[in-house]
Amino acid sequence: MSQKSAEIAHIAIPSDANAIGSVFGGRILHIMDMVASIAARRHSGCRVVTVHVDKVRFINPIRIGQVIVAKAMVNRAFTTSMEVGVKVYAEDTYTTNTIHACSGYFVFVAVDEHGDRVRVPDVTLVSEEEKKRWQQAAQRRNDNVK
Amino acid sequence: MSQKSAEIAHIAIPSDANAIGSVFGGRILHIMDMVASIAARRHSGCRVVTVHVDKVRFINPIRIGQVIVAKAMVNRAFTTSMEVGVKVYAEDTYTTNTIHACSGYFVFVAVDEHGDRVRVPDVTLVSEEEKKRWQQAAQRRNDNVK
Amino acid sequence: MSQKSAEIAHIAIPSDANAIGSVFGGRILHIMDMVASIAARRHSGCRVVTVHVDKVRFINPIRIGQVIVAKAMVNRAFTTSMEVGVKVYAEDTYTTNTIHACSGYFVFVAVDEHGDRVRVPDVTLVSEEEKKRWQQAAQRRNDNVK
Amino acid sequence: MSQKSAEIAHIAIPSDANAIGSVFGGRILHIMDMVASIAARRHSGCRVVTVHVDKVRFINPIRIGQVIVAKAMVNRAFTTSMEVGVKVYAEDTYTTNTIHACSGYFVFVAVDEHGDRVRVPDVTLVSEEEKKRWQQAAQRRNDNVK
Amino acid sequence: MSQKSAEIAHIAIPSDANAIGSVFGGRILHIMDMVASIAARRHSGCRVVTVHVDKVRFINPIRIGQVIVAKAMVNRAFTTSMEVGVKVYAEDTYTTNTIHACSGYFVFVAVDEHGDRVRVPDVTLVSEEEKKRWQQAAQRRNDNVK
Amino acid sequence: MSQKSAEIAHIAIPSDANAIGSVFGGRILHIMDMVASIAARRHSGCRVVTVHVDKVRFINPIRIGQVIVAKAMVNRAFTTSMEVGVKVYAEDTYTTNTIHACSGYFVFVAVDEHGDRVRVPDVTLVSEEEKKRWQQAAQRRNDNVK
Repeated sequence: MSQKSAEIAHIAIPSDANAIGSVFGGRILHIMDMVASIAARRHSGCRVVTVHVDKVRFINPIRIGQVIVAKAMVNRAFTTSMEVGVKVYAEDTYTTNTIHACSGYFVFVAVDEHGDRVRVPDVTLVSEEEKKRWQQAAQRRNDNVK
Repeated sequence: MSQKSAEIAHIAIPSDANAIGSVFGGRILHIMDMVASIAARRHSGCRVVTVHVDKVRFINPIRIGQVIVAKAMVNRAFTTSMEVGVKVYAEDTYTTNTIHACSGYFVFVAVDEHGDRVRVPDVTLVSEEEKKRWQQAAQRRNDNVK
Repeated sequence: MSQKSAEIAHIAIPSDANAIGSVFGGRILHIMDMVASIAARRHSGCRVVTVHVDKVRFINPIRIGQVIVAKAMVNRAFTTSMEVGVKVYAEDTYTTNTIHACSGYFVFVAVDEHGDRVRVPDVTLVSEEEKKRWQQAAQRRNDNVK
Repeated sequence: MSQKSAEIAHIAIPSDANAIGSVFGGRILHIMDMVASIAARRHSGCRVVTVHVDKVRFINPIRIGQVIVAKAMVNRAFTTSMEVGVKVYAEDTYTTNTIHACSGYFVFVAVDEHGDRVRVPDVTLVSEEEKKRWQQAAQRRNDNVK
Repeated sequence: MSQKSAEIAHIAIPSDANAIGSVFGGRILHIMDMVASIAARRHSGCRVVTVHVDKVRFINPIRIGQVIVAKAMVNRAFTTSMEVGVKVYAEDTYTTNTIHACSGYFVFVAVDEHGDRVRVPDVTLVSEEEKKRWQQAAQRRNDNVK
Repeated sequence: MSQKSAEIAHIAIPSDANAIGSVFGGRILHIMDMVASIAARRHSGCRVVTVHVDKVRFINPIRIGQVIVAKAMVNRAFTTSMEVGVKVYAEDTYTTNTIHACSGYFVFVAVDEHGDRVRVPDVTLVSEEEKKRWQQAAQRRNDNVK
């Protein structure tokens, strides 16, 4: 696994459920933040702190008993911050179906042990997909500044 | 308390902490989703499901031992969905300081017991502040559609 | 919200349930202690430690999916201790019913960072209801000493 | 172990701590309710529901790393309800000290699978201590009715 | 209770359940490790760290609503380590049935506050059962070394 | 990722800590059982139940703030059961060190929705490493039967 990505798998148990039997949004956001922060830590080699969360879209519900798989990758670094893309899948191992449940973008800053910001190297781009994400990250950043 | 708002107070305990002694982002997102969903349930009288999370900004860290206060209000309803604004404060009861820790917007859809979408009445606007939020909610919605 | 009160709202999820589908007593006591301690911290501006719990009455069960609303108010201060009254409601947002689920009294002492007791100012009484609670708090205290 | 008693041992971990390094009151109440309900279930052979909590006294703090030992015994049955006494100890296995941390009384009603109240046999009294507790339970019940 | 044993009772709640309605294995292992470590702490008077887990056999499922009873006893000490046997029972208080759910062996080392290993006295053997366990512990240890 | 393996990454937070600042054994066993059961579910396409846990060796402590990475792979299927090997690593992203923290073997049976055992296909062996593990799994199974 690359040094700028991370993956979590978690079986959705009854304590993850909302009142209508699917995993509640706050629980999924919690998992997304954790997997994204691990990717950001691996890329920067630093402590990281969440500063922005944007464009989280819940597309399909995750049912109790399914496996929640969350994957994160650092799309781009901006001096001391990093944009991390997160995708969440619901894996129904009994039917071998996997559905796309949720996506979103998390921005972290890298800090040292005193909490001061630390410079982060940009990501190395290999695939066309990675280059596209790198460019879109700047676009999202500009939209937020406006 | 109005039928379109909700409030949660929670003492930040060691199990809420990240590795650098403040409350980690995923825990705050979890609390924001819960308080926002209660406001949306109160306004709609329906079960609600998180569909979008946008423009979450972490402004100041929350320290262990402080009181996390999260307040949510439904800004506007759009047929079957509602935009809820959430603000999170860190209350240091020992110094009587209260700081603004985090803000963000959560969109929920109202559903019936079969999971089908249900129409929601729009909010009643009283203050100028409420009217401003109602207008900005439409702007944020248009930005997301683009 | 007054500086001597606090409020918590929490959606009862399956992990709060006992074996017969309602929220188990220990979970409600946990929530009552938290909301009461926040009210006591706000009033005293100090760290607080639970010393007594009395006359907790569970009146109606809270069902999974309902919103647990817990409200606390400091009734009276006694040199270094405070009596806090707590009421818990179950809100069924689907039917707009709110029922009174539980009540009780929690006594806290205020302590400094070394754990030594600290004097606390008495509460300011505005309403007739507050005066009545202030007097009853002394009665409850006398009953306990006997 | 007798059919009217129960015992729980639990290592106090950092997530049980309040802001001043000891186990917070709500966590101890949660453990007391659980051990008391197990004693009540064993005595009655029924589902049980907490109805009263009285005279809980926190005597000494429990430190993180100590073993929390909670012991419960049914003192007396009253038609469909049972009074259970609970004592909590903090065991410092490194110094072999055991301190009395907390005591209190929990009342449960026995219910069948429809939630209807069920008659419970009274306890069998063997020791003088048990007879004293049986008499005091009636006294506490009368005080509450007044 | 002897200074080399420990007991935990815990009501299995919905958040302990796997997708097919019984308590999931990881939760039971968690409880077994806790009760075993308390027995090892009591015997050694030291901090203890888990080093081996062996021959855990899940014999019968534990259903939600049953009482999980876990009992641990130090079988033998080996210089700085201790073998602890753990048995887990599921108590159905409604039918007064108790079934044997799980057994296993946990080995701990005793350490001082710097994490250095500390000598532990061997256990005192009273019953024939204890003597048998003491001999079998050496056999299990030899099998692991091979 | 192969259909017979699974991976979990988790940041060790203060609530995972034992009294001496490292992640306690029961918490690691809990994570190992979860990742192993996901691998077994993916391979079998069935619900799975833990039946054996063997030869778990805790080699190095995991510190709070490190990333716990747990990897599981199905080594061999035996009619209706599967042996899964689990390795746990502690990743110190600040120093880019990764240490081997723990290993062990978990055996699951595959069951249908009635809890009846279901036949599972054996694993496909590609690498020499996989063939070695497949042979050792049979050896471990024989040792347990003896």
